[in-house]
Amino acid sequence: MFRTHTCGELRLSDSGKSVTLAGWVQRIRKMGGMSFIDLRDRYGITQLVVDDSVSKELNETAESLGREYVIQIKGVVVERSSKNGKIPTGEIEVRINEMKVLNQAVTPPFTIEDDTDGGEDIRAKYRYLDLRRGPLQRALALRHQVAQEARRFLSDEGFIEVETPVLMNSTPEGARDFVVPSRMNPGEFYALPQSPQTFKQLLMVAGYDRYFQIVKCFRDEDLRADRQPEFTQIDCEMSFVEREDILTTFEGMAKSLFKNVLGREFSEQFPRMSYSDAMNFYGSDKSDIRFGMKLAEITSMVKGHEFSLFDTANYVGGIAVSGGAEYTRKQIDELTEWVKRPQIGAKGLLYIRLGADGAKSSFDKYFTQEEIKAIAEKCGAVNGDLVLIMAGEKRDKTQEALGTLRIEMGNRLGLRKKDEFAPLWVYDFPLLEWDDETQRFYAKHHPFTSPKPEDLDKFFSNKKEDLEQVFANAYDFVLNGTEIGGGSIRIYDSKVQQRMFEVLGFSEEDAQRKFGFIINAFKFGAPPHGGIAFGFDRFCSLFGGQESIRDYIAFPKNNSGRDVMLDTPGKIDEAQMNELFIKSTWVPPVK
Amino acid sequence: MFRTHTCGELRLSDSGKSVTLAGWVQRIRKMGGMSFIDLRDRYGITQLVVDDSVSKELNETAESLGREYVIQIKGVVVERSSKNGKIPTGEIEVRINEMKVLNQAVTPPFTIEDDTDGGEDIRAKYRYLDLRRGPLQRALALRHQVAQEARRFLSDEGFIEVETPVLMNSTPEGARDFVVPSRMNPGEFYALPQSPQTFKQLLMVAGYDRYFQIVKCFRDEDLRADRQPEFTQIDCEMSFVEREDILTTFEGMAKSLFKNVLGREFSEQFPRMSYSDAMNFYGSDKSDIRFGMKLAEITSMVKGHEFSLFDTANYVGGIAVSGGAEYTRKQIDELTEWVKRPQIGAKGLLYIRLGADGAKSSFDKYFTQEEIKAIAEKCGAVNGDLVLIMAGEKRDKTQEALGTLRIEMGNRLGLRKKDEFAPLWVYDFPLLEWDDETQRFYAKHHPFTSPKPEDLDKFFSNKKEDLEQVFANAYDFVLNGTEIGGGSIRIYDSKVQQRMFEVLGFSEEDAQRKFGFIINAFKFGAPPHGGIAFGFDRFCSLFGGQESIRDYIAFPKNNSGRDVMLDTPGKIDEAQMNELFIKSTWVPPVK
Repeated sequence: MFRTHTCGELRLSDSGKSVTLAGWVQRIRKMGGMSFIDLRDRYGITQLVVDDSVSKELNETAESLGREYVIQIKGVVVERSSKNGKIPTGEIEVRINEMKVLNQAVTPPFTIEDDTDGGEDIRAKYRYLDLRRGPLQRALALRHQVAQEARRFLSDEGFIEVETPVLMNSTPEGARDFVVPSRMNPGEFYALPQSPQTFKQLLMVAGYDRYFQIVKCFRDEDLRADRQPEFTQIDCEMSFVEREDILTTFEGMAKSLFKNVLGREFSEQFPRMSYSDAMNFYGSDKSDIRFGMKLAEITSMVKGHEFSLFDTANYVGGIAVSGGAEYTRKQIDELTEWVKRPQIGAKGLLYIRLGADGAKSSFDKYFTQEEIKAIAEKCGAVNGDLVLIMAGEKRDKTQEALGTLRIEMGNRLGLRKKDEFAPLWVYDFPLLEWDDETQRFYAKHHPFTSPKPEDLDKFFSNKKEDLEQVFANAYDFVLNGTEIGGGSIRIYDSKVQQRMFEVLGFSEEDAQRKFGFIINAFKFGAPPHGGIAFGFDRFCSLFGGQESIRDYIAFPKNNSGRDVMLDTPGKIDEAQMNELFIKSTWVPPVK
Repeated sequence: MFRTHTCGELRLSDSGKSVTLAGWVQRIRKMGGMSFIDLRDRYGITQLVVDDSVSKELNETAESLGREYVIQIKGVVVERSSKNGKIPTGEIEVRINEMKVLNQAVTPPFTIEDDTDGGEDIRAKYRYLDLRRGPLQRALALRHQVAQEARRFLSDEGFIEVETPVLMNSTPEGARDFVVPSRMNPGEFYALPQSPQTFKQLLMVAGYDRYFQIVKCFRDEDLRADRQPEFTQIDCEMSFVEREDILTTFEGMAKSLFKNVLGREFSEQFPRMSYSDAMNFYGSDKSDIRFGMKLAEITSMVKGHEFSLFDTANYVGGIAVSGGAEYTRKQIDELTEWVKRPQIGAKGLLYIRLGADGAKSSFDKYFTQEEIKAIAEKCGAVNGDLVLIMAGEKRDKTQEALGTLRIEMGNRLGLRKKDEFAPLWVYDFPLLEWDDETQRFYAKHHPFTSPKPEDLDKFFSNKKEDLEQVFANAYDFVLNGTEIGGGSIRIYDSKVQQRMFEVLGFSEEDAQRKFGFIINAFKFGAPPHGGIAFGFDRFCSLFGGQESIRDYIAFPKNNSGRDVMLDTPGKIDEAQMNELFIKSTWVPPVK
């Protein structure tokens, strides 16, 4: 061992001890015949002192040091005269007797500090240096802790972690697969799993009863910010359960993570909300319930006032921005522009200002003061508030736009506090989605999601309106406005499964071709089962109070799916392609 | 929940309780107006009783049942009249009041019993049914337990589990990579990791100090029996350590696994052996030390007796087979044929039989009785033993052949007991291997493996003999004759690394092209570090006392890399290939 202690370990009670430390040089300061060196490792920082008068050799070595040099020192722990209350080792320093440079370092391209001077690109290229910084070290340590705690909890609950294959088959009706040419099976390809969905259902058929896996999944999608081509899920499945069992079990897991990782106790049951309430009150099935500012529907109140915007709308709703009456016309115009951006796509924004001088709105000429006040009241506004109103043809789209505005206002008013955690179950999603273009229903979750037991009659009805009223036995786990888990009770009755394929417009051959494999397995005695999968990267970033998941992944890829540190993907040899019986058809554009 | 208890839970003390159980029908027996049903789940088997006189409906349902039907029953726990001491629930049975068939099952193609009647192929195809059998359920539960325990141990020791990318870059000088065409980066490919070696060394450069990961790795090799294209490693790396620290830490892990998973305590330090002792005494660097029968070298004793076989050999060695004097000529001939098979490639086998009638050997005419007895004695033989002797031109090849024979004799004599565990550290491997054909040295481990500190002078010498005498700071963990872990202290001094590349015959450009990425990272202050990786699948199978790893992998592939259950790999659409800018060049042979 190159050390007797780590750089985060020594305390006042160690005074007088002879110790050996090793680590990286964080900082060097000179002061009147003394050199002070901050020595850093994963565990902390310890101040070292070189007294110029000790030895020429030691002095020379100390003189030679640069930032990020790796050194080993021997010395004696002494009490500091000027203590540093900010770090756990701040009461002591180590007086050096011997110093050895284990490795030199060229000057890093950015400072290795919590607040670094490096831009995103340079830090991505030198990820191994960025990973030395405190925030990333803490992020990855947190990730480890969450994984350990999740595994401990699930294991204690009788779940078995089973590894499922990475080299598997293509997923029908899913996102785009990454594929792997097989050398031993020429002309054929493996696919990387988008999720172990099939395998976990097979494990239930196989009687494993409670399965989980913290597992890498892959989707070859065009990457939006903060999406990764490979990502990690906590994937779970249980047999002989109903929805309530799943919610109880995984609420237990979440509570245990909150408690044992973050030290937060949730004694009450997590709030639960139906999909339709989530849309009506938050304009989002990923409701952020850390703050109020709920959507209020005012459609019926505003009709028949000869204001065509309202009269032609199928949905009109508003939110009350607390203290917003002070918003200037310019600020409201800016918000209007904000909601008109294509990402939101609203046609405009109306408002009511409840100021000291009464109610003032952008539609004053169609309504009386009392009517306007009543609308504002309906939206939950009190004196001093601003009511923001949207109207639209499509109920869900308008609610979503208003929900997005609500989140933006929440951000602007500082209501979305990072250190506050508001978990939420959302359930009773519609089972099916009608697509006007193809004139057919699609499964909102996947074709193995069970309808709610009480909706089975409607599910077997031939009326479109009935089918649109069928709810799925599915549920999402939402934290602070982000969906981090989702799952469902699966269909295990073959008649219901057949009906599902029929509703989705698959012929029997279609179904057999696409899902024959699992339909077959289900013939041998499938238990009632259901499950859930959590987005682990996102889970960790929320636990760490961060928006971006990048810091919670050791070696993330950029938006083009490249690892800029490795400069990957890259070319491969012709010979290797020949062995795999493939050929690249890419012709680089002539520049 | 579909049940109040599992099928492994009820005991005599539960008598009188009303319970609900759910599971699979294992077996049905009829006896005088009663039906006895064995109900199975992951947790055990509970006997159910249907009394014909209870209700017509219940009777009819019971009549309809078949093997592997999934049922739910309500009933009362009663004491059994004829108890079954073999199962934990054997003192009770459940008298059924209500029964519901949750799912029917077509007759499985083989019996779901510990000893099934299904052949390997049919069980592979219906893996989800094979996985219902006790031995596989126990194997996967053991695997889960080993993983949990390893994670707990390492976590407690300050290791952080860090996930490294699956989509990474091609490994220079490794085995063949699986590759993944990138859609977003046309003409370019990712490679799947053969091991996270580069990443874990980068994590040490990044200051993570103690890293581990239980991680899938991939090698596109022609599969020998019991090799899988994807396999799992416990991959570990530590900073500021020397060999002794690694051995101590991971011996600790192994001991904790032995204790907490298998209930075996190892109070003593694990045996340690140099590579050269392993070869000299066991003819294998994966010595099985569960039994003796050590190799003894007799080269000098047998020279100069005008027996050309001995006189031309550079190595002559023997093993003493206890009680083998009874072996007939025919048996010895059969052994001789056995060692002549191409897998072993020995030219022949000599013997000495130490029977009641004195020593009798296959080279009696060149030696006196006393000389033959002395040779036998040197090999450790006593009266009643058989000495088997091999002679060869190449020392190591001959030792290996004799070592293989030793293992075979160990098997035949029942000395390799599955429930006996003999861990062993092997170290001091040669650093370099000379290849006559290409007239250059190759790294026996990999080019980042450090020479032993005391061999550095020789390492910088220009004499081939000196370089052949340099030992690597590497170590293997061996269990019962199988290598299940291996690692090394890495080079962290750039001068030593440069010398390594020089010795391996790389020009500076070569080195930069192949390893530039990590050489570069090392310039920013690399700590001394080293690590180890364990073959997790193998580890689990040895813990389970099994030779084959297949039962310890939920969904293994066959020797052609196919998952016969999924029928994967398979064809993909032309459209998908076009998107990926690849084309298949495979032309199926005309039949």
